[in-house]
Amino acid sequence: MADLQEFSDFAQALADASRAIITDAVQRPYELEIKPDQSPVTAVDKAVEDKIRQLISDRFPDHGVLGEERADTNPQAEFKWIIDPIDGTLPFLAGLPVFGTLIALVRGEGPVIGVIDMPMTQDRWVGCQGQVTTRNGAPVGCRPCTSLTEAMMASSNPNFWSDSDRAALGRMNGATRWGVFGGSCMTYGQIASGHIDVGIEVGYDIHDYLALVPVVQGAGGVISDWAGAPLTIASGDRFVAVGDQRLHEQALKTLEGA
Amino acid sequence: MADLQEFSDFAQALADASRAIITDAVQRPYELEIKPDQSPVTAVDKAVEDKIRQLISDRFPDHGVLGEERADTNPQAEFKWIIDPIDGTLPFLAGLPVFGTLIALVRGEGPVIGVIDMPMTQDRWVGCQGQVTTRNGAPVGCRPCTSLTEAMMASSNPNFWSDSDRAALGRMNGATRWGVFGGSCMTYGQIASGHIDVGIEVGYDIHDYLALVPVVQGAGGVISDWAGAPLTIASGDRFVAVGDQRLHEQALKTLEGA
Repeated sequence: MADLQEFSDFAQALADASRAIITDAVQRPYELEIKPDQSPVTAVDKAVEDKIRQLISDRFPDHGVLGEERADTNPQAEFKWIIDPIDGTLPFLAGLPVFGTLIALVRGEGPVIGVIDMPMTQDRWVGCQGQVTTRNGAPVGCRPCTSLTEAMMASSNPNFWSDSDRAALGRMNGATRWGVFGGSCMTYGQIASGHIDVGIEVGYDIHDYLALVPVVQGAGGVISDWAGAPLTIASGDRFVAVGDQRLHEQALKTLEGA
Repeated sequence: MADLQEFSDFAQALADASRAIITDAVQRPYELEIKPDQSPVTAVDKAVEDKIRQLISDRFPDHGVLGEERADTNPQAEFKWIIDPIDGTLPFLAGLPVFGTLIALVRGEGPVIGVIDMPMTQDRWVGCQGQVTTRNGAPVGCRPCTSLTEAMMASSNPNFWSDSDRAALGRMNGATRWGVFGGSCMTYGQIASGHIDVGIEVGYDIHDYLALVPVVQGAGGVISDWAGAPLTIASGDRFVAVGDQRLHEQALKTLEGA
């Protein structure tokens, strides 16, 4: 585990660099570009990713880097850093403080370290295989919740859901006590901190979900695809996370309408 | 306007008191109660409202106070304070930093002062009739946006929308460039600060919407019910706010499906 601790410390140094860029950038206007798929990207996303890539290549030149805004580096390496410079670009543009920087370290196919860094509230969750997840350095844990009927559910943006997926979202809304929307990556930090019981998403890619895995797991939660399989670098675009393991099967069944 | 300035300063003192209670309370567990309508209320909501009521009755004993959690005081007074101790109770419970305290002063039927205070990000918008809206003391303004097709739209919680209202939400989603959800009262601060172009809501009551009116109007925006009428203490539960006046008619037509 000595290796992982070194990498975990380094991941936090990456998050420090990212937070410094973002908290400075939001003080003034920044360039906005509409990508071919109509999704927005800003000069801030690019500046964060470039800085993180530079820090990684200086320190671990053999590692891979898969970021959202630039071409992949060493994608076949054993250790790969998966970066989302700003997860929640729409909240970022809208000035809603639920966007964050996501940093994952993958060994082979699976994530072993994850950092969720929230620049606007200065919250940081760090997950590291074999360790308890921390929020701002203090250990955290998911809360008990034995039934979806008592659960606080969260999901990011209902507009990301296709009509057929929306039926699954509707079933989850019906099965849970409360639903909140728009939390982006912070939802999964708050599952680890025991404030949210279930998170469900569609339309996510590796940059969005891999960092969440060690954070949720290290707090006692479960995160998987909708079939119940662990999330790896090769998973599909939808996942579910629960704080209490007893909710996992209930959530999977509700999602698939069984 | 001397009167209003005094009231505006006092409204900010109320927000100071509220913020102190909330930022302290989130450090530890708090009591949660499920109201008969299944909506949640916490001991923090009640503590904030009680403190604000006490400060108002000490300073302006003849004023009315209409809060969300306690019985109305002097509801026939010329000046009435309308308080939502925590707007965005679900985000508050979920640990998402988009909840805030709303304080409005109504003279007769219409709001003349509004404060949106965000304890987690320490942001405060203050609107006062005849003055430019401020964010943390600095003047702000809505941004230009001439067409819904270019607009960032926001709304709080799609679960609050009935099936028939959802058709209107779907039309707005189709007509605008981007939609973000879950922003609660902060959406309307960010319309005033030029980060969001359109906000739409249903299921709101006077505690939720009156404080938003002076904030949006004092930044150059328009806020009305879905028929285009100004919001007063007697308005219904749905409203639309736009940063650029040229979007108002487009939004009203899209909402009604005309």
